[in-house]
Amino acid sequence: MTASESLSALLDHQRETEALAAIAGRLEWDQETMMPPGAAEQRGEESAAISHVLHARRTDSRIGDWLAAAEGAEMTDAQAAMLRHIRRDFDRTRKVPATLAAEIARVTSVAQGRWAAARAADDFPAFAPVLARIVALRQEEGQALADGGDVYDALLDDYEPEMTATRLDAIFGEMRPRLTTLRERVLDRPEPAGLTGAFDEDRQLAFTRTLAQTFGYDLTRGRLDKSVHPFSSGSGADVRITTRVNPLDPFNCFFSTIHEVGHACYEQGIDPAYALTPLGHGVSMGVHESQSRIYENQLGRSRAFAGWMFDRMRDSFGDIGIDDADTFYAVVNRVQRDFIRTESDELQYNLHIMLRFDLERALISGDLAAADLEGAWNERFRADFGYDVPRPSLGCLQDVHWSVGLFGYFPTYSLGNVYAGCLHKALRRDIPDLDDHLARGETAPATSWLRDRVQRHGGLYRPAEVIERACGEAPTAGPLLDYIEAKFGALYDL
Amino acid sequence: MTASESLSALLDHQRETEALAAIAGRLEWDQETMMPPGAAEQRGEESAAISHVLHARRTDSRIGDWLAAAEGAEMTDAQAAMLRHIRRDFDRTRKVPATLAAEIARVTSVAQGRWAAARAADDFPAFAPVLARIVALRQEEGQALADGGDVYDALLDDYEPEMTATRLDAIFGEMRPRLTTLRERVLDRPEPAGLTGAFDEDRQLAFTRTLAQTFGYDLTRGRLDKSVHPFSSGSGADVRITTRVNPLDPFNCFFSTIHEVGHACYEQGIDPAYALTPLGHGVSMGVHESQSRIYENQLGRSRAFAGWMFDRMRDSFGDIGIDDADTFYAVVNRVQRDFIRTESDELQYNLHIMLRFDLERALISGDLAAADLEGAWNERFRADFGYDVPRPSLGCLQDVHWSVGLFGYFPTYSLGNVYAGCLHKALRRDIPDLDDHLARGETAPATSWLRDRVQRHGGLYRPAEVIERACGEAPTAGPLLDYIEAKFGALYDL
Repeated sequence: MTASESLSALLDHQRETEALAAIAGRLEWDQETMMPPGAAEQRGEESAAISHVLHARRTDSRIGDWLAAAEGAEMTDAQAAMLRHIRRDFDRTRKVPATLAAEIARVTSVAQGRWAAARAADDFPAFAPVLARIVALRQEEGQALADGGDVYDALLDDYEPEMTATRLDAIFGEMRPRLTTLRERVLDRPEPAGLTGAFDEDRQLAFTRTLAQTFGYDLTRGRLDKSVHPFSSGSGADVRITTRVNPLDPFNCFFSTIHEVGHACYEQGIDPAYALTPLGHGVSMGVHESQSRIYENQLGRSRAFAGWMFDRMRDSFGDIGIDDADTFYAVVNRVQRDFIRTESDELQYNLHIMLRFDLERALISGDLAAADLEGAWNERFRADFGYDVPRPSLGCLQDVHWSVGLFGYFPTYSLGNVYAGCLHKALRRDIPDLDDHLARGETAPATSWLRDRVQRHGGLYRPAEVIERACGEAPTAGPLLDYIEAKFGALYDL
Repeated sequence: MTASESLSALLDHQRETEALAAIAGRLEWDQETMMPPGAAEQRGEESAAISHVLHARRTDSRIGDWLAAAEGAEMTDAQAAMLRHIRRDFDRTRKVPATLAAEIARVTSVAQGRWAAARAADDFPAFAPVLARIVALRQEEGQALADGGDVYDALLDDYEPEMTATRLDAIFGEMRPRLTTLRERVLDRPEPAGLTGAFDEDRQLAFTRTLAQTFGYDLTRGRLDKSVHPFSSGSGADVRITTRVNPLDPFNCFFSTIHEVGHACYEQGIDPAYALTPLGHGVSMGVHESQSRIYENQLGRSRAFAGWMFDRMRDSFGDIGIDDADTFYAVVNRVQRDFIRTESDELQYNLHIMLRFDLERALISGDLAAADLEGAWNERFRADFGYDVPRPSLGCLQDVHWSVGLFGYFPTYSLGNVYAGCLHKALRRDIPDLDDHLARGETAPATSWLRDRVQRHGGLYRPAEVIERACGEAPTAGPLLDYIEAKFGALYDL
């Protein structure tokens, strides 16, 4: 085979793998939205079968041969980027022994149920041995991946390629004192009132469709369904989102939808020429989260957009118990004493993440035993939030992530916020009259800018490079912190 | 490997193939119910990828080795039946050259669109060359499968194992004169009035759910959605059905749902121990159709059940423009002059099928050129139905089947009716008070009998054997014809 034939063979193989991975993703979507409850056990076997096929394709030794043989081939920048992704994934997948990968899959599939039971019973000791086993397996995997380097970094690299804990330390080190200080000052102020009354579920769903389309989500290449936890799923021409509806809390439904629309628009915005290639997905969890966060927060919770949304909600629901747009803006940005990450506001959210980041690093390094997690969590929570965690379901058992083996994932949420801060600063610089548009419900100037600067590139550039190219400078935490301090300072008359 | 190890390896391989086939089936369900319209092209590539994986697994040469090595192994009757299915499928799949299979897939995927366009334009000559190409490819495939035997039989065998055109000729030869005679007599009588008015779509959907549950469809292992054409999909613990709703024609919705429920209950009724094995599916198209037909017609359109349904419809919809249960029974069994197979009644349906069976045999044998199909169709239609086909969309272009390469499929519909006739005779013999139950909307005595006699066996026995064991005698057309003559003789005062 010539170099160019090897390149073709490699990309053909990869394309079929991508198509099969898309099917596996759709199967997960089905499981969360459509699957009848009695089908769960059978579905487990189906999922294992397609995972097995994908693993075999991704570790196929011909990939190594093709990669070597393709080196001399003439190729476009996009093809070179594709090969970079393929080599990276191939190397990573091959480093992990199949028996270890299978054991991780087995243990985590059982562990999720054990975690849910422990959380329901508020019984951390019941979960601690399971967690210890997961940590041990992921340590082993990290060692296999790290080649003598940092084990945590090797795990992090799966979600945020080329990011390191040391760099995150620097970023988070700047954020933590400024956020805890601001948090204390805000919580000294009187708390704004919340929403009262019940909001019809069908009208909420109709309103979410309006919001999704307002932010540019293309429903001819997607769909909106209900699920227990909102998520976005798929790439290219089939990117689906879900939401959940609570009659007492329409904002949860609306802002989680805008959040998922941000993820979905990233996928929908990628150059169609990259579909079913390694470039046809969001490039990292952090960059993905930057899109969902800027849609949800910097745009969706802005004063200008809140005014438009306030009017539309009154059109749809009548009297909502809020009298003016300023109050509405305050309500959707309310900072409260709470324990739950997923219900947190822009100010406190990153404190939740840093807590998890430090604890999971300590677990992986061995400095913290799984059995001691609850105590460590509660101590750190008290330090950063100022009050005690009453029970583990409001503390270290609140998130599913560790039970399914996700270590190195949490920090990408805050990294996404940092990236969103940088993008927002550049966006405001480039579109000075953005608020005039947002006040009319026009998101297109912002979303087009994001599509052009970030989304369309898919996996073409490295994660931090995408943000730097979009903003014209390397990402730092400064813009996010400045934005948060200005916004909440004004909201709370500090 | 010992014989018993080979048996295990073979069954493990098969199990994973079954799981992947279940995924491919779910993907088709998604395509017809949930897929956003813009995703069609990408989905084509995804479907091709999973088909490719399945084909590679099904032609894996290790299957032949395992089959040979497993011969001496001790095995259960069920395992022996599994091996029979595996050997049969392996032999068939290996006989068809990969290039031919790929060409058939390519041509038929394009042909469906060409057929739809020709039907919309009522232009048979535009479709004739496409049809000629499909016939030529299927002839070639049939020759490869037939090993010198009958080519049509080789194609038929894909849908109805071990059935032959000669046996069908004997069955249909008995049916055609009795049905055409009865048809002429019925259509001489005054036509009963039909349904008038519009029926709310949401109420229709709610009513179909009631009907589905009345017939024993388990919604915890299934679901009911809308699609353009109703279908049933899946096996084991995840068997889904669809329906369609037309405000002017609720009976189409209701009886097509009962029909699909028959298919779905067959799949749901199979012994769970057979799930994800070759025994975990309905054994043939004919036996499958026997279940859908007996649910829809011999049970659903019986006088006793019609009485119950009449009351329930008035509960749900108020005045439906029909005053009594006898009239309701006449309306749901109305025989009309029409052209369309899928809208036909119990009496005329099989005449539609026999026409197609004779014409497709002539196409495959080469006695009929594709270009001459329209003339041959119209001539035969006039002979059997007594009036002329005005345009090909009401004639030879009405069904999708041939455009997607299905030759040998049509006769299984009538075979299903014949089997349903036999099962119904045995059912009435074993449950003398069946009508008392049906009049109260209790289908369980009938559906439990069918589950016990037919459904639970899945693929354990050969198709005709399943029916013979259930009924205590070999299947013939007599019971169906007796039933139809008695029913429509009474309805039309003959």
